[in-house]
Amino acid sequence: MFDFSLDKPHEECGVFGIYAPNQEVARLTYYGLYALQHRGQESAGIAVSDGRAIEVHKGMGLVSEVFSNHIIKNLHGKMAIGHVRYSTTGSSLLANAQPLVVHYQKGMMALAHNGNLTNATELREELGLNGAVFQTTTDSEVIINLITRYRRESLEDALVKTMMDLRGAYAVVILAEDKLFGLRDPHGVRPLCIGKKGERYCLASESCALDTVGAEFVRDLEPGEIVVIDENGLHSRPGLRKNRSSSCAFEYIYFARPDSTIDQINVSESRLKMGIELAHECPIDADLVIAVPDSGTASALGYATTLGLPFGEGLIKNRYVGRTFIQPTQEMREVGVRLKLNANASVLKDKRIVMIDDSIVRGTTSSKLVAMVRKAGAKEVHFLISSPPVAYPCYYGIDTAEREKLIANRLDMEGIRKFVGADSLHYISEEGLLRALGTENVCLACFNGSYPIPVSDLNRGKNSCG
Amino acid sequence: MFDFSLDKPHEECGVFGIYAPNQEVARLTYYGLYALQHRGQESAGIAVSDGRAIEVHKGMGLVSEVFSNHIIKNLHGKMAIGHVRYSTTGSSLLANAQPLVVHYQKGMMALAHNGNLTNATELREELGLNGAVFQTTTDSEVIINLITRYRRESLEDALVKTMMDLRGAYAVVILAEDKLFGLRDPHGVRPLCIGKKGERYCLASESCALDTVGAEFVRDLEPGEIVVIDENGLHSRPGLRKNRSSSCAFEYIYFARPDSTIDQINVSESRLKMGIELAHECPIDADLVIAVPDSGTASALGYATTLGLPFGEGLIKNRYVGRTFIQPTQEMREVGVRLKLNANASVLKDKRIVMIDDSIVRGTTSSKLVAMVRKAGAKEVHFLISSPPVAYPCYYGIDTAEREKLIANRLDMEGIRKFVGADSLHYISEEGLLRALGTENVCLACFNGSYPIPVSDLNRGKNSCG
Amino acid sequence: MFDFSLDKPHEECGVFGIYAPNQEVARLTYYGLYALQHRGQESAGIAVSDGRAIEVHKGMGLVSEVFSNHIIKNLHGKMAIGHVRYSTTGSSLLANAQPLVVHYQKGMMALAHNGNLTNATELREELGLNGAVFQTTTDSEVIINLITRYRRESLEDALVKTMMDLRGAYAVVILAEDKLFGLRDPHGVRPLCIGKKGERYCLASESCALDTVGAEFVRDLEPGEIVVIDENGLHSRPGLRKNRSSSCAFEYIYFARPDSTIDQINVSESRLKMGIELAHECPIDADLVIAVPDSGTASALGYATTLGLPFGEGLIKNRYVGRTFIQPTQEMREVGVRLKLNANASVLKDKRIVMIDDSIVRGTTSSKLVAMVRKAGAKEVHFLISSPPVAYPCYYGIDTAEREKLIANRLDMEGIRKFVGADSLHYISEEGLLRALGTENVCLACFNGSYPIPVSDLNRGKNSCG
Amino acid sequence: MFDFSLDKPHEECGVFGIYAPNQEVARLTYYGLYALQHRGQESAGIAVSDGRAIEVHKGMGLVSEVFSNHIIKNLHGKMAIGHVRYSTTGSSLLANAQPLVVHYQKGMMALAHNGNLTNATELREELGLNGAVFQTTTDSEVIINLITRYRRESLEDALVKTMMDLRGAYAVVILAEDKLFGLRDPHGVRPLCIGKKGERYCLASESCALDTVGAEFVRDLEPGEIVVIDENGLHSRPGLRKNRSSSCAFEYIYFARPDSTIDQINVSESRLKMGIELAHECPIDADLVIAVPDSGTASALGYATTLGLPFGEGLIKNRYVGRTFIQPTQEMREVGVRLKLNANASVLKDKRIVMIDDSIVRGTTSSKLVAMVRKAGAKEVHFLISSPPVAYPCYYGIDTAEREKLIANRLDMEGIRKFVGADSLHYISEEGLLRALGTENVCLACFNGSYPIPVSDLNRGKNSCG
Repeated sequence: MFDFSLDKPHEECGVFGIYAPNQEVARLTYYGLYALQHRGQESAGIAVSDGRAIEVHKGMGLVSEVFSNHIIKNLHGKMAIGHVRYSTTGSSLLANAQPLVVHYQKGMMALAHNGNLTNATELREELGLNGAVFQTTTDSEVIINLITRYRRESLEDALVKTMMDLRGAYAVVILAEDKLFGLRDPHGVRPLCIGKKGERYCLASESCALDTVGAEFVRDLEPGEIVVIDENGLHSRPGLRKNRSSSCAFEYIYFARPDSTIDQINVSESRLKMGIELAHECPIDADLVIAVPDSGTASALGYATTLGLPFGEGLIKNRYVGRTFIQPTQEMREVGVRLKLNANASVLKDKRIVMIDDSIVRGTTSSKLVAMVRKAGAKEVHFLISSPPVAYPCYYGIDTAEREKLIANRLDMEGIRKFVGADSLHYISEEGLLRALGTENVCLACFNGSYPIPVSDLNRGKNSCG
Repeated sequence: MFDFSLDKPHEECGVFGIYAPNQEVARLTYYGLYALQHRGQESAGIAVSDGRAIEVHKGMGLVSEVFSNHIIKNLHGKMAIGHVRYSTTGSSLLANAQPLVVHYQKGMMALAHNGNLTNATELREELGLNGAVFQTTTDSEVIINLITRYRRESLEDALVKTMMDLRGAYAVVILAEDKLFGLRDPHGVRPLCIGKKGERYCLASESCALDTVGAEFVRDLEPGEIVVIDENGLHSRPGLRKNRSSSCAFEYIYFARPDSTIDQINVSESRLKMGIELAHECPIDADLVIAVPDSGTASALGYATTLGLPFGEGLIKNRYVGRTFIQPTQEMREVGVRLKLNANASVLKDKRIVMIDDSIVRGTTSSKLVAMVRKAGAKEVHFLISSPPVAYPCYYGIDTAEREKLIANRLDMEGIRKFVGADSLHYISEEGLLRALGTENVCLACFNGSYPIPVSDLNRGKNSCG
Repeated sequence: MFDFSLDKPHEECGVFGIYAPNQEVARLTYYGLYALQHRGQESAGIAVSDGRAIEVHKGMGLVSEVFSNHIIKNLHGKMAIGHVRYSTTGSSLLANAQPLVVHYQKGMMALAHNGNLTNATELREELGLNGAVFQTTTDSEVIINLITRYRRESLEDALVKTMMDLRGAYAVVILAEDKLFGLRDPHGVRPLCIGKKGERYCLASESCALDTVGAEFVRDLEPGEIVVIDENGLHSRPGLRKNRSSSCAFEYIYFARPDSTIDQINVSESRLKMGIELAHECPIDADLVIAVPDSGTASALGYATTLGLPFGEGLIKNRYVGRTFIQPTQEMREVGVRLKLNANASVLKDKRIVMIDDSIVRGTTSSKLVAMVRKAGAKEVHFLISSPPVAYPCYYGIDTAEREKLIANRLDMEGIRKFVGADSLHYISEEGLLRALGTENVCLACFNGSYPIPVSDLNRGKNSCG
Repeated sequence: MFDFSLDKPHEECGVFGIYAPNQEVARLTYYGLYALQHRGQESAGIAVSDGRAIEVHKGMGLVSEVFSNHIIKNLHGKMAIGHVRYSTTGSSLLANAQPLVVHYQKGMMALAHNGNLTNATELREELGLNGAVFQTTTDSEVIINLITRYRRESLEDALVKTMMDLRGAYAVVILAEDKLFGLRDPHGVRPLCIGKKGERYCLASESCALDTVGAEFVRDLEPGEIVVIDENGLHSRPGLRKNRSSSCAFEYIYFARPDSTIDQINVSESRLKMGIELAHECPIDADLVIAVPDSGTASALGYATTLGLPFGEGLIKNRYVGRTFIQPTQEMREVGVRLKLNANASVLKDKRIVMIDDSIVRGTTSSKLVAMVRKAGAKEVHFLISSPPVAYPCYYGIDTAEREKLIANRLDMEGIRKFVGADSLHYISEEGLLRALGTENVCLACFNGSYPIPVSDLNRGKNSCG
């Protein structure tokens, strides 16, 4: 299998939830997940509840592959949650698909999670000492076991106590006791927002899913907040004291859909502003600005407009790149990048080019792109990146790469420039990024190693979404 | 979907286990399950252990559908267990597939189970009160949670204590702590036997699986026995005091493969003897003896030989009857039975026929078969059954039907005869059956309602294998 | 892939046709093919016609795999034909699936064929010289091109002229011009019979398919006959002068279903009589007669009854042997035969055994079976075969093996006995076989090389059904 | 199934061919087709030839779904051709997949075709009168039957004579007699170009496929030209007298990949120029220019740059829109367009918007997009189209819609504006389009009804690619 995501961090998970008696909640969740598909392509699942019994269907693949009309029609309920997941290979893949559904002393519960706990190993050990058995390697199973540990409390109180046990990044949706719950960690690393469709409420990782199901955006969950959605509407339960908010910067840089707005920042606009900042930081006398599509496009437009330079489609993306593909043999390895992206020689020939991408992880793809642009006739290639150098791993739910493989950790700026083969190389500064985002309340740990949430050594090897 | 098993009790589950470092344990387990396929066609699974980590692959369908060579090759280990399962429909089918694999405080454990607990509901409640969460509706998950409840004991002691908690029928294989364990309930309702392949040992629901993998039959597990198989060979741990043995009579009558020998009784021979007993109990002046294939064949041969009557292939079975099939529409409902069995008019025409079947559950198929034989030209049809009337449900792992649907519970003998349309009808007597089996140590509860193991009211609705 | 058919000739093809306006002809054809599944498991297809337009669905696999209820429901028409096919591997498999449907000058035509033309190569060349292009390697395409060559004639006349061109074995069903046609070659090698369902008629390779769809058997087609079925019922068009009939003996010995009656001979009865003949030819003082199931069973019963010997289930067949299976590795090659057949030691131990099989082709499986029976404790194994030695290849639609691989061609009787390891070996004589069949009008070419229909050298390498 | 192509003409077919002994021609063809996937997503096929025997694999679905590494590895040869196809639904879909492979008098031949013959019906009739039978409804089968009609000529001469018979649009690749042939119709409606990889040559519908396999662009085939590629390299055989070239304008407007260059015109650049022309024809005082992605993007950039207006990502496309999708129920019909495209309110709010799309066919989608942009807060929506009004059907291989459904045929400009709900509406003029393309040698029949190639009445209902 050929990795088409090339050299990018991997999207992790997306969640959706809706409480809407007398509506087709499974179908709405299906459309919601469809809009969140970019957050995870490996497995998908939907659980529905009639207030007591919970049914679930999950499978490997895209939302459109896992669900058929027949399956959706047979998932009846008054409320539903759904999940899309990126995960690594292994025989237990399906077992780890979400939502996770359990029977416990008070009935049934379903839970779906985006993020990564940084004390999961310790919590597993502690629960194991008390007799818990685990059938998956997901954080979701840890969270559920914690909730049932507090089964003598009311469910809301149990959720608060559970959040006091948890450390890390999490955006969680839960079906239990005739209610839909949403939880967001006290740093608000992973996004979760509230929508309103008619008189009913829903929850989603990104606002684009609200648009898709025809719901109005209400607001993001506060860091540390618990929301409860039921027959009486929505109410908020102050969960944990809100820390300084640390929204993941990479959601804006690369992950989230351009039409989503997260914590008051529109993704497309933030990318445009990153391009403007790059123009201020590094104005280049070039003939044409091009983007590495799709995530680099807005930044490239911002850069070009600011400097009055023309923007052109210098790199074209094959829209049919799928998840399965026959790996090129060694002799055809050159084919690799070209299957996804092709240089448009007519546009590039004899020009001095500014090429804008959102990030460099290992650098291998970048060097091929620069070479491809040169081969297509570009006289100069100036490579601008709309994120600072990625030099530290993420422990909050994003799969970058091991630290040793990050090019920014291995080489200095001149070394990277030589490696990718550009005439010049510029990364946006942290200050420029913060200006583009218009806030300092973001997590920049993968750039500067300043982790807002502690990570125990035991958990450093682990970073599985869900 | 058209139910091709017609009017028969449903096979439930089969288990297999092997400890054989340096051999292909997954492949051997695959072949073992293949030989046990008749015990369950809905799902199959194999778990392998290298002594610490356990990997599992399971899926819906036949063994040959669930596993490919590629999958088998990638299941490495020194020991393995496998499971085939019959189960009812529902969206959570795959979740209930076995073996069940868990992480617990002491490491990993895999477990597969044939049988049915009669106090599972109480045990689930008790465990739930202590915080256990259940992701399946299987007894296996109950058993695993009990074992981990005794995690402060040695594993062998924990198994003994667990068996003290369990009530019902169970034959269990477990991978844990570098050992393969086998457990059989104190009444020995469900079969489990030991084989030896070279210097290594294996466990199987039926001896035919030992033949298939090239292992020698050693012996059956004693009721209440625990066997431990590891680097040092096999040793027996007296588990619970052995009750009076109560092997399931239906294993001999219908379920087990003819070439299996269970608790010293060869299945094919026992069926032949049932036919001999029927000949003594009910000799009929007929022209031809025929069987409802395949399970009625040995009895019919015994009957014919005893009375010096010719045996003929009066009913022919379609060997390609599969699990999926397009349901005949109402107008073609008549087609139903004929797709599986066809009367051979050349053989039947103008003859007085004795037709032998192993059992009648609801009676609907029997009446169609009698009519089919008549339509093919038989002058008389005498219907003999090699089991006593099935009048009570089984709670020990066999899916017969609800009591109200059992024809022997609804009608008297003459009523049944009229319903099926036979000229005469005879069921083997309990005494005849016991004579044929050569022992009184069998469970006849489904015939006489005398349940050797108590069944609490809470569990009467439940009878799921595994 | 492991070849589960072991060492048997391969079944070839089966055809079915029905004319029944206002009935579900596709569904009836589906059930008819289901009953003929033993004649071909590699591909299946159904074509329906409303009298003008023809629709077809075909695919690789069993009838139950190729068709869903949805597909059957969408095949509307007043008449239909269907086909099941055994064929060899290759990338063009599906292209060769039948029925073949074409547009020609007069409209559409669909055709399905069982048998093998012995002058196909010459006909292809001749047609090619006139500009014909071929998209498959089937005889069906040759036949269709011949029919259209005579397009200036009426269709019935064209069929007669086509039959004058054809040499070989063929049983053909055709949909064209609002009619269903059936053709049988002048030697009647391959079977084809007529059924009546209410006022409507159908055609089938074997009578068991008529039973399955609820049709009455009317009669077999005469060798050389053409039947035309339409709104006016059925009429016969004398096609070619009937040669001496040469029904394929192997249909009775091994291929056909026991409940079928072909050319007035019931298959099951003929097998019983083969056993009786074997008893006369070779009475053995043994303790038990066993069969190699399933095709050897009737012969073994005939043998045992005649000599007053007990019959027992000494070899048990795994009923779940499917088409796909993981090949045993070299070390486990011993597993091979045991996956399909297992010796029942309880029945065989310390006995002198007569084992009856229908045929020996290469002899490899036979030697394993004898060894297996011995290992299970048999004191003596006498091996009786209900067919004469297979020493010549079939060119009329049956895939035996190349001549050099036929054991009867390589070794003398004593050599074969030693090879298979039996204490004694006896094949039924040709005379005995003819007595059992009660006719001399059968083709025995594979036994004695006396080919009733000439085979040109160009066609000796070719023997593809359909 | 939900039609995600919304209201666009349907892409038709793409072809690829390569002659390269000792290279993996099937794999290279696979990559070539991958780059041409946008030209047809319904079926894909590859045929390989070793100079004599031809093997083919084809199937329904995307290139990545039809082929596995295993299949590609087993397609050996010195040359190959491939095809991707868009086609309508029906049970005979697979039969129509290409390449078509035949045996004819001189050996084997494989052929793949993009375009549509306008005298196919007449040619079929004529061939049928001479006894030809057709198994598909494709033009390819007609072309092959014509070629074999001239089998007494050399193959090159037969191709010339065949081209004299053909009327319509066609780009054809053929494997026969150890050679790879390419044919382009005398008007050059459909594209076909030549590439060179090392010393070997290949053919492709678009130059982007040459880039992908690492071949250099050599030139486009001349209208009416035949090229022959073999061991001796490439030579051109003047086929038919070249007519005035009439390249399909829609290739530039919508179909072709932006990085392709067809008949000296780069697609991306031509779209940019269409935007510039639109700016001259219809300058609007707006706040933001947005595109309907992806094909409208280049035009929008050209428009914005020319007028000094900002360009923004106002409509965002879901990148995971697949071929299969659960159709929204009636109540959720509103969801339809939003699943594919979402308006980005942050970007659009309170702005006067110019929205640029490539074409309007029925107008239904356009009205939803305008409404969506308004609902997202746009104060004004001016809708500009980079093609003239589509008022006539295409008979040369593009599936637009029946004439009565074309909105430009039903309403006048003001009527269309009202229907789509825009504040103003402007289509590019024919003159503007020709200026943007820089040539008059294009087919504009769908805009002005001036068909360069005659279409007989019999063929007006037919327009199937391949």
